[in-house]
Amino acid sequence: MFQKWHLFTPGPVPVAPEVLLAGARPTPHHRLPEFSAVLSEIREDLQYLFQTRRPVFFFASSGTGAMEAAVANLFSPGERVLVVRGGKFGERWGEIAEAYGLQPVYLDIPWGEAVSPEAVERALSENPGVAAILLQAHETSTGVKHPVREVAEVAHRAGALVVVDAISALGVYPLPMDEWGLDVVVAGSQKSLALPPGLSFVALSERAWERVEKAESPRYYFDLRREWKAYQKETTAYTPAVSLLLSLRESLQLIRKIGLERLFAHYALVSRACREGVLALGLEIFPRVPCEALTMVKLPEGVDGGALTRLLRKRYGVVLAGGQGQLKGKVVRITHMGHQSPLEGVLALSALEVGLSELGWPVKIGAGVARALEIIREHAEEVYA
Amino acid sequence: MFQKWHLFTPGPVPVAPEVLLAGARPTPHHRLPEFSAVLSEIREDLQYLFQTRRPVFFFASSGTGAMEAAVANLFSPGERVLVVRGGKFGERWGEIAEAYGLQPVYLDIPWGEAVSPEAVERALSENPGVAAILLQAHETSTGVKHPVREVAEVAHRAGALVVVDAISALGVYPLPMDEWGLDVVVAGSQKSLALPPGLSFVALSERAWERVEKAESPRYYFDLRREWKAYQKETTAYTPAVSLLLSLRESLQLIRKIGLERLFAHYALVSRACREGVLALGLEIFPRVPCEALTMVKLPEGVDGGALTRLLRKRYGVVLAGGQGQLKGKVVRITHMGHQSPLEGVLALSALEVGLSELGWPVKIGAGVARALEIIREHAEEVYA
Repeated sequence: MFQKWHLFTPGPVPVAPEVLLAGARPTPHHRLPEFSAVLSEIREDLQYLFQTRRPVFFFASSGTGAMEAAVANLFSPGERVLVVRGGKFGERWGEIAEAYGLQPVYLDIPWGEAVSPEAVERALSENPGVAAILLQAHETSTGVKHPVREVAEVAHRAGALVVVDAISALGVYPLPMDEWGLDVVVAGSQKSLALPPGLSFVALSERAWERVEKAESPRYYFDLRREWKAYQKETTAYTPAVSLLLSLRESLQLIRKIGLERLFAHYALVSRACREGVLALGLEIFPRVPCEALTMVKLPEGVDGGALTRLLRKRYGVVLAGGQGQLKGKVVRITHMGHQSPLEGVLALSALEVGLSELGWPVKIGAGVARALEIIREHAEEVYA
Repeated sequence: MFQKWHLFTPGPVPVAPEVLLAGARPTPHHRLPEFSAVLSEIREDLQYLFQTRRPVFFFASSGTGAMEAAVANLFSPGERVLVVRGGKFGERWGEIAEAYGLQPVYLDIPWGEAVSPEAVERALSENPGVAAILLQAHETSTGVKHPVREVAEVAHRAGALVVVDAISALGVYPLPMDEWGLDVVVAGSQKSLALPPGLSFVALSERAWERVEKAESPRYYFDLRREWKAYQKETTAYTPAVSLLLSLRESLQLIRKIGLERLFAHYALVSRACREGVLALGLEIFPRVPCEALTMVKLPEGVDGGALTRLLRKRYGVVLAGGQGQLKGKVVRITHMGHQSPLEGVLALSALEVGLSELGWPVKIGAGVARALEIIREHAEEVYA
């Protein structure tokens, strides 16, 4: 009975039972008025989540699909875009841009470091005619949080749009689309929305929308012109992922009930507690500017990340993510997103301590957890009152 | 998304998703051959769990129903039985015996203490003609574990049967029915079987069965003669709780897959870790002889159990049980039964530490968790390998 999973991976994340059950209902027909009512509700709640008055579109696809939708709908072959590249998902922006025949200019930064607004400003002035800057709110492969607001200001001054992959950021910390003037925001279902994978989201500012009619990139499934027509008729262009949308409605209702402010405060608290717990163990946090969605732990010399994640999974059912690309084997990631209670990160930290000890690293068992609990103890009343 | 429950109550307990899903299937008809096959499977696996070759009967009822079945099927009005009474469930044996017009002789022990075989021997010799001794494997209201094996030896020497309420004990620690010669063993679904409430179980030794034909207590729903007839025809006397039985089949399969030995080792380890964690906080364990199913923490002077359980439930989703009867407000109970991973008890301990601190008790946050983790670290390899 003790064979139970605790997911601390950056997608999929734990899903609340009421959300799963909503998706387990018999599939309604997606062209009936009853389903249009569901869509209207979802669309309104998505605007709340995106903090925008603009329509939010969704696709049956992974988050990458919505990234592609952003590129295909905004740009034409030969156009120049600035790509912030300091991890696997920055690379992905570049790959999509190249696949569509754009001319990406790369702003390369070392893995683990955040882009600076100054570097963006310099790159934009050195590369006139860049249509947009493509970046991540945070780079999930390194845990680094980029200064999106400041980058947006710099980009707008240079006349460039700002396209933000917020797949594992939206709903975790503030990214108010309208207030910050973000031109494209992309999201996914299996992150802070705490749903199974299979849905992606994209919203465009008015300025970005003006490009949609003119862009010459080929597109069909991800064509936002078709989706916008369908949107106005309270339906979708193609068959939507109905069961996931029923779950989404439930999840968005939970988010509204809790409120974005409290949700942000929760993630800020648990991520800080986990980070300080890791530091108290004498370990290092990998990213210079850590995000609130996950804690990325630099493993000590001699400890193999693969062996550690395997041990924790098999023995304790605790599923941490390893590193990607050049970080493979060198880090583990503890994700805070999804249906996790305030003290659940402590369980991940417990597993990390015990696991490191079992692998022969001299850990002072309990030291990390103690520090994390102290921080939660100090702030829980204001966050969860 | 952080509003999530962690049940550490002594029933209901967390239920595995595959077990819940098994019970969510469309209800099959209980008189068809397909369902008889399910019953045969369940009955065989129940014999494994009870460690007996005797038939194990089940009822759609709470555990109390099976306690009543034991009394109604074995005894006649006016018969004398010895009742071990040192908590709420010992009292319940007495109440049922009185309801059926038996003459219970009470062996009263202070709450928190285990019965001694010597005291049983004395009571039996002072009360000749006692047909049986009725006791708990452990008294869930005090967390005390009784020496069932030794009591059984003493009772048999005196010619008395041994009737054991193992509702929250079976599957937690060894209680081999045939090997120890236990005459009646009673169990319930919402404990170590890790099912929702609604099913109870009872098995009788051959010696106990001889009484069933002769017993003059009135009974109908709980009449084991009818159930035995139905059992032989691979069915049940009355409509069974079909969905719970489908879940039961799944749960029993999980138990067989894990194996009783490993399950016992798991409970022994997590209960020991939790107990020593509590002691490391400077708190006391209430029962003199603690059982492996739950850890019963004596609260320090000035800390109200009701306030503590309320705070932990509301703020952290951690549901501990308070005290019953004379222990109300004075203890909290952390249950280890059910679908809980090896490190999940640490989450309960974390909550206890933080909660006590929030209520003003000077707790050294992390000290209990550290001790618990050290013990798990030390033994996890042998238990969960």
